[in-house]
Amino acid sequence: MNISQIGEFGLIGLLAKQVPLDRRVIRGIGDDAAVLPYTKDKYLLFKTDMIVEGMHFTRRMPAAAIGRKVMACNISDIAAMGGMPTFAVVSIGLPKSTALRFVQGIYKGMGDVARQFGVSIVGGDTSAAQKVVISVALLGEVEKKYLVTRGGAKPKDWIFVSGPLGGSLRSGRHLTFTPRLAQARFLVRNFKPGAMMDISDGLAGDLNHILKAGKVGARLWTESIPRNKGASLKQALGEGEDFELLFTLPPAKAKKLMGWQARQRAFYFYPIGQITSDRKQTVHARSFTHF
Amino acid sequence: MNISQIGEFGLIGLLAKQVPLDRRVIRGIGDDAAVLPYTKDKYLLFKTDMIVEGMHFTRRMPAAAIGRKVMACNISDIAAMGGMPTFAVVSIGLPKSTALRFVQGIYKGMGDVARQFGVSIVGGDTSAAQKVVISVALLGEVEKKYLVTRGGAKPKDWIFVSGPLGGSLRSGRHLTFTPRLAQARFLVRNFKPGAMMDISDGLAGDLNHILKAGKVGARLWTESIPRNKGASLKQALGEGEDFELLFTLPPAKAKKLMGWQARQRAFYFYPIGQITSDRKQTVHARSFTHF
Repeated sequence: MNISQIGEFGLIGLLAKQVPLDRRVIRGIGDDAAVLPYTKDKYLLFKTDMIVEGMHFTRRMPAAAIGRKVMACNISDIAAMGGMPTFAVVSIGLPKSTALRFVQGIYKGMGDVARQFGVSIVGGDTSAAQKVVISVALLGEVEKKYLVTRGGAKPKDWIFVSGPLGGSLRSGRHLTFTPRLAQARFLVRNFKPGAMMDISDGLAGDLNHILKAGKVGARLWTESIPRNKGASLKQALGEGEDFELLFTLPPAKAKKLMGWQARQRAFYFYPIGQITSDRKQTVHARSFTHF
Repeated sequence: MNISQIGEFGLIGLLAKQVPLDRRVIRGIGDDAAVLPYTKDKYLLFKTDMIVEGMHFTRRMPAAAIGRKVMACNISDIAAMGGMPTFAVVSIGLPKSTALRFVQGIYKGMGDVARQFGVSIVGGDTSAAQKVVISVALLGEVEKKYLVTRGGAKPKDWIFVSGPLGGSLRSGRHLTFTPRLAQARFLVRNFKPGAMMDISDGLAGDLNHILKAGKVGARLWTESIPRNKGASLKQALGEGEDFELLFTLPPAKAKKLMGWQARQRAFYFYPIGQITSDRKQTVHARSFTHF
């Protein structure tokens, strides 16, 4: 049996069972970031993401955009837990013939977005490789009271997204997106979502992670799902790499948020459906999967 | 200009200059692990290592040995700072045709050595790739009073290694070595080395990092350098992947250590030379470099 037969999530499920985990770990594999003990009031968050030439990018793309993307994906995951990113290490594999300018471009892009979000790059590893491959591991911290996982969705909760979806790869927005750190921090400070994650594999697939974790179902108001220009509903549901926040709020808080944003212009969160108690109500659309 | 022209350390030096670093960072790029703020009495350590198929291993090697190695390399680096490893995340790139059994073998090997040294694997990323590539990021912690960097070597200090060197790749020991965590913790608790690191690129090259960091020179007692069976002095000096500890102790402590180990059988540390104030006294031997 090879890994394309078991699929990405089958593989992750299988591997998660065989790795060592101890009681110190608040939350391990299965959320946007791991949650670890830290101080009296805070948890440490820990996350990694890898991108590979020919799979996630080509060398014809601007090097800075490639570096920017891998760091931004990690920042987006820390934001989705309600936290603030802090320190990163970077592993990079490079063909010997790689132009120095290309490598510098990658670090320029990583450095720019890191600086913008208060992240220090504190270490790394360089290695020879056949294709360019970059892996970033990022730490973050979150006040215990602000931690949000995928697991807290309750029946009747409203479902929100932080921006329009679909067409991210076609438009190039997957390289230039802004991690929704400000929005996520606003939410945890003022509304404390029940469940939250970022949309990386597509709304339908990612919402199903929230439903599975909360043992709930959902009904989507499909006409309310905000779509990027030119994106079909199918694309908004199924394409990945949007990196918008997907979260749930109890009805009273949802209405409070709607009232707040009717008066403010800082952020806008789109209500797109409601959590139900019927676990059979899931969302069907083909999501991105690696294998 | 491409990266093979500037070389691995040239590249690292160049990149280190352009990444964001803030005042919170105790020590960034340039030691075995980054040193970060943590609790009142402890620092957080943060480290990453990547291994690539065709560069560090082939798929004909036992999968468990490959997984074991990448985790053990990281543990060795945390040990070399005087710390204890705690939590790891793993990024893995895999061709779609990879046998499930091979991936499980990699995780078995990583899991076994992680468990042995008290490390929990708390998260990861899986991605499609042309060749198998594994990146591990590892956290650790160290009591502030036990932290040892590469930078503390002083003239007249003795230089020690924790075991015989050379022939690691030929003998397969680079896959099966035991990280010297117990030895490192014994040292920081009882003797507090001035400088310490693990030997990954070869004794000569790695010692030069200590000399450069401490702005000192060294004289090696070449006949005292412990060598593995069949390894020449040149191989003991120049080959990498030994993963023994290399450290310095002031003369009084060095003699105390020698006295201690004449009476004990727990560990043995080999004195191999002495630090000098003449910075021109460096060690010449070709070390491993990636580019």
